[in-house]
Amino acid sequence: MKVIATPAHAAHAPSGELEGGRFVPAYEVPARVDLILGALEAHSFAAPEAPSAFGEAPLLKVHGAAYLRFLEDAFPAWRAKFGDDHPSAFPSTLLGRHLRAMKPRDIDALLGYYTFDIATPLHAGTYGAARAAADSALTAARHLHEGAPAAFALCRPPGHHAAQDLYGGYCYLNNTAIAAQWLTDQGRRVAILDIDGHHGNGTQTIFYERADVLTVSLHGDPRDTYPFFLGYADETGAGAGEGFNLNPPLATGSRLDAYREALNAAIARIEAFGPDTLVVALGVDTFAEDPISPLALIEADYPRLGAEISRLKRPTLFVMEGGYALHAVGNLTANVLLGFSQASS
Amino acid sequence: MKVIATPAHAAHAPSGELEGGRFVPAYEVPARVDLILGALEAHSFAAPEAPSAFGEAPLLKVHGAAYLRFLEDAFPAWRAKFGDDHPSAFPSTLLGRHLRAMKPRDIDALLGYYTFDIATPLHAGTYGAARAAADSALTAARHLHEGAPAAFALCRPPGHHAAQDLYGGYCYLNNTAIAAQWLTDQGRRVAILDIDGHHGNGTQTIFYERADVLTVSLHGDPRDTYPFFLGYADETGAGAGEGFNLNPPLATGSRLDAYREALNAAIARIEAFGPDTLVVALGVDTFAEDPISPLALIEADYPRLGAEISRLKRPTLFVMEGGYALHAVGNLTANVLLGFSQASS
Repeated sequence: MKVIATPAHAAHAPSGELEGGRFVPAYEVPARVDLILGALEAHSFAAPEAPSAFGEAPLLKVHGAAYLRFLEDAFPAWRAKFGDDHPSAFPSTLLGRHLRAMKPRDIDALLGYYTFDIATPLHAGTYGAARAAADSALTAARHLHEGAPAAFALCRPPGHHAAQDLYGGYCYLNNTAIAAQWLTDQGRRVAILDIDGHHGNGTQTIFYERADVLTVSLHGDPRDTYPFFLGYADETGAGAGEGFNLNPPLATGSRLDAYREALNAAIARIEAFGPDTLVVALGVDTFAEDPISPLALIEADYPRLGAEISRLKRPTLFVMEGGYALHAVGNLTANVLLGFSQASS
Repeated sequence: MKVIATPAHAAHAPSGELEGGRFVPAYEVPARVDLILGALEAHSFAAPEAPSAFGEAPLLKVHGAAYLRFLEDAFPAWRAKFGDDHPSAFPSTLLGRHLRAMKPRDIDALLGYYTFDIATPLHAGTYGAARAAADSALTAARHLHEGAPAAFALCRPPGHHAAQDLYGGYCYLNNTAIAAQWLTDQGRRVAILDIDGHHGNGTQTIFYERADVLTVSLHGDPRDTYPFFLGYADETGAGAGEGFNLNPPLATGSRLDAYREALNAAIARIEAFGPDTLVVALGVDTFAEDPISPLALIEADYPRLGAEISRLKRPTLFVMEGGYALHAVGNLTANVLLGFSQASS
């Protein structure tokens, strides 16, 4: 399986996020990529290939131009307001209920217009890292389009919580959606299966009113779990997209038996959609020992997830999303890919 | 002038708020009340009177029952989740754009459903203090209704950023709106004039579709200043309330000349409305030396504000809102009241 990765991600290195009313060390850290690469090497995957630069055009199919300029320019504006000793740009005021979606001039509040959490900092290197991650997803998508049966884009920062003009959940550019859109633009029929433990709210939002891309997300109950304000089973799409979004319910703390039931429903819906291409938003924060996992899968479950996905027998692009148990993230990720490859061969 | 105050506010003592991506010492602190009481005493105001308990009924005319239960129960739920060593309840995920107004079970996210900033902590004593502040406003309103020409409710925490079921901006219960509603329920015709430096978004929202209460707010340009996402000049009311909300524009950094122009427009609109009662949301964070002031009034301006307001010649209830320059907040507040009293006599 082709693996696409780049050290460019390391320019984005969050130091903390808000939890319990105080800053705790960030969960989404550069070491995640190194640990995954190490596990892939240990499992004899091919050496990773660097991404090609695709430019902004494929990003603009998914994200707004003003949003991309915001991501690029926000940190310099933040630094101009607060100075060099405020290295993590987080908003203090956000666009809540009963308020009006006006874009403020103040940079602190402009962050609060564009995000919905205090977990997703902007740094000097954030936009460059996010662009490199999107390029990784696009490069892997091109391999698929050129005939590869499977490819893995080791994206960081992740993407599935980012919508057209919204960042959050450690995500800035929606790598999964950008790749799915690019494949669609090549004439392919794409289904997205999101197996990250958290709902892929950004991906759902981007394709919510479209029938040409099916979106399915398996995740912990949003009443208990991030992103909290989306990911319910009654969200089935809207307008032309009605019926083309699926969120099979999964109770908090679910183990493999419940998970496989939801996965089977997902696979059946995807089969009925009849895609020629599958994009898997691959998060491994479904793991019981993950610090922010809502579910309780164990290490032995991960090859089985890959094997189940292989039943669809479609060219499959894996795009890295979450996974924060540093002692396990490498093996869990490699095991999904190995389970897929071994069952496919 | 009657002064209503109570030491009950001190049970709400925030230690910090988010600014520039880190926690800084809170601006809204118990010392504010002591400093204002000291200045009133120095200026020979009558000793303050304690508030009467009005119960929940007058609060429920303005706020939702579920919201009151949330304010009361949130901190115990927070403590149950995070433990005693997390004394300041702030959410990490908020209800931003592209999301759905679902109430989560998770207490951290439930805070993010009900607020829109990381500046307004919930503590064990918050709800009790907020209730005492509302009682202070109600007690002062009753004096007015019983014939007093003027009264001052030294409320803390402040209230004007809190809407029906939204807290933020250091505000939990909208003392000004609660008093205005109570006076309306006694058959009075009430105009609210908000002279806090920040837009009274909660008050505006509560009365936005009503013609029976006029709301006017003078404040710094929301493009630059909290609450950022409301307070624009084109917000004139909706439905039956169309034409009954006024936000005269004030450029960031305005001094008295520009301020008086806006105040004159406000007074003319209030005169045209023909109220028999005036409620003034009295913030003194219009002061040039206030750490979060968007405007640039100087100490000598404050008696003039009181004198201008007295031109309306209406029974007037002053309800304390913001003011964070600890070296000045007492005198500024006393000077508005003195300017009003001296011009009225």
